[in-house]
Amino acid sequence: MNVITSLPELRAARKTLPGPVGFVPTMGYLHNGHISLVNAAKAGCTSVVASIFVNPTQFGPNEDLAKYPRDLPRDLSMLEAAGVDLVWTPTPEGMYPPGFQTWVEVQDLTRRLEGELRPGHFRGVTTVVTKLFNAVRPDRAYFGQKDAQQAAAIRRMTSDLDFPIEIVVCPTIRETDGLALSSRNIYLNLDERKAATVLFRALSAAKTAYEGGEREAESLRRIMRELIKAESLASLQYVSCADYDTLEELVTVRDKALLSVAVHLGKTRLIDNFVIGNPADK
Amino acid sequence: MNVITSLPELRAARKTLPGPVGFVPTMGYLHNGHISLVNAAKAGCTSVVASIFVNPTQFGPNEDLAKYPRDLPRDLSMLEAAGVDLVWTPTPEGMYPPGFQTWVEVQDLTRRLEGELRPGHFRGVTTVVTKLFNAVRPDRAYFGQKDAQQAAAIRRMTSDLDFPIEIVVCPTIRETDGLALSSRNIYLNLDERKAATVLFRALSAAKTAYEGGEREAESLRRIMRELIKAESLASLQYVSCADYDTLEELVTVRDKALLSVAVHLGKTRLIDNFVIGNPADK
Repeated sequence: MNVITSLPELRAARKTLPGPVGFVPTMGYLHNGHISLVNAAKAGCTSVVASIFVNPTQFGPNEDLAKYPRDLPRDLSMLEAAGVDLVWTPTPEGMYPPGFQTWVEVQDLTRRLEGELRPGHFRGVTTVVTKLFNAVRPDRAYFGQKDAQQAAAIRRMTSDLDFPIEIVVCPTIRETDGLALSSRNIYLNLDERKAATVLFRALSAAKTAYEGGEREAESLRRIMRELIKAESLASLQYVSCADYDTLEELVTVRDKALLSVAVHLGKTRLIDNFVIGNPADK
Repeated sequence: MNVITSLPELRAARKTLPGPVGFVPTMGYLHNGHISLVNAAKAGCTSVVASIFVNPTQFGPNEDLAKYPRDLPRDLSMLEAAGVDLVWTPTPEGMYPPGFQTWVEVQDLTRRLEGELRPGHFRGVTTVVTKLFNAVRPDRAYFGQKDAQQAAAIRRMTSDLDFPIEIVVCPTIRETDGLALSSRNIYLNLDERKAATVLFRALSAAKTAYEGGEREAESLRRIMRELIKAESLASLQYVSCADYDTLEELVTVRDKALLSVAVHLGKTRLIDNFVIGNPADK
């Protein structure tokens, strides 16, 4: 497995990879959710490139950039074991040199939900993903459904800007009690970890109601809201039942829709979501 | 010469072109300035792609989108005669379908000069050029020095976003009396056409002063300002003596710099510029 930090070396190494090339961008501190993306890329592509880059421009001034967990040796051994061909590990200075001033922004759908609470976050995401796409030039790129709004923004950006790249969104990977895997789960203490299943429980309850015939989006949101409010350690940020593509809040669920929640457990912010309204999705 | 309007057909045709591929994006109504870009591409590349697209998102609400001159048959015969291999002629509906919401923006350097007078203009330019780059995937792209700020924005964007594309900026092509070729020159009546040489005369006078040892930027601006004010048909918008890369106004010319002017002649807006401070440029 080739580990490369400089862009010219990446471009040279990329030329030697047989296509189709699959790409898994990450911020490192990998878990089985990331590895499931690598596995999907391995299954669908001849070569697989992963990147590890804790992107500073997607963190707000009061967010956890400095303490975001990092463990490069462990990440590299996980990627090697999963069969990745090339890992790109750019530096912040290389990605954002002095004078950097170009931004890629998806407008409407990034203003809701996470975007409303994290101004500038998605601009940082879509800008760095554009840079990663231009550096790696993959045929397919793999993202987790866990970050549903990020996946929606990247699908929109890829289509709007005519990137010749297929975006593959893979199912959320969960602990046995339903907690979605996230690099931020390590911030939770024992009590918070137990309470953290409330996101999965709320989403499951709303999905069960949907499957039982409930189509009023506000009823589904109420089910999630009440379950989360009943968990004393959890502080609710939002519940949402929105159109899958535009993320506009729905009145009535008619088509593919996204149930999503954001919750604070102590100082740790967790998000989760289910897709409903399409039998092919979970 | 292959003329293609659909993106999937363009992608298929692109794959058959031997590299390196040169790309000349245009808004059509071609003149010898455009053809000089094609000639440069022919000289440096194995295949040459041109595009013709009057990009609506770079026109302001009070600008000349509707009446922008068009003559596709003439453009195609000029490109064919110049030896272009493939012409892409996308449609506004294909480029900006319903729901389009992604923009590429170069921040600081697009806020000055043209950007100050034409808000949103450069956002439209950099967004459409990103789309054209992703569609055509050239190895080199050719732009005219005539639109100096556009060239600076595209150089910055290409570098910031890691496009693996070399930006080649070619010298301005002029009429024998010095007027820079522009598709908008046809808007000028006879008297305005005669007065239009004032841009070249002002720039030439400032350049002569620079070559005579003048390094105070404000002195160079004053020379241009006074010459333009002496032309009764001309209405001055700006004169500038700025850093070549950042377009920040200079106090003292020490390095490569851009002299630029914008003038109204009747209803027609003309711009022009000279690069000074580097013997390799004109």
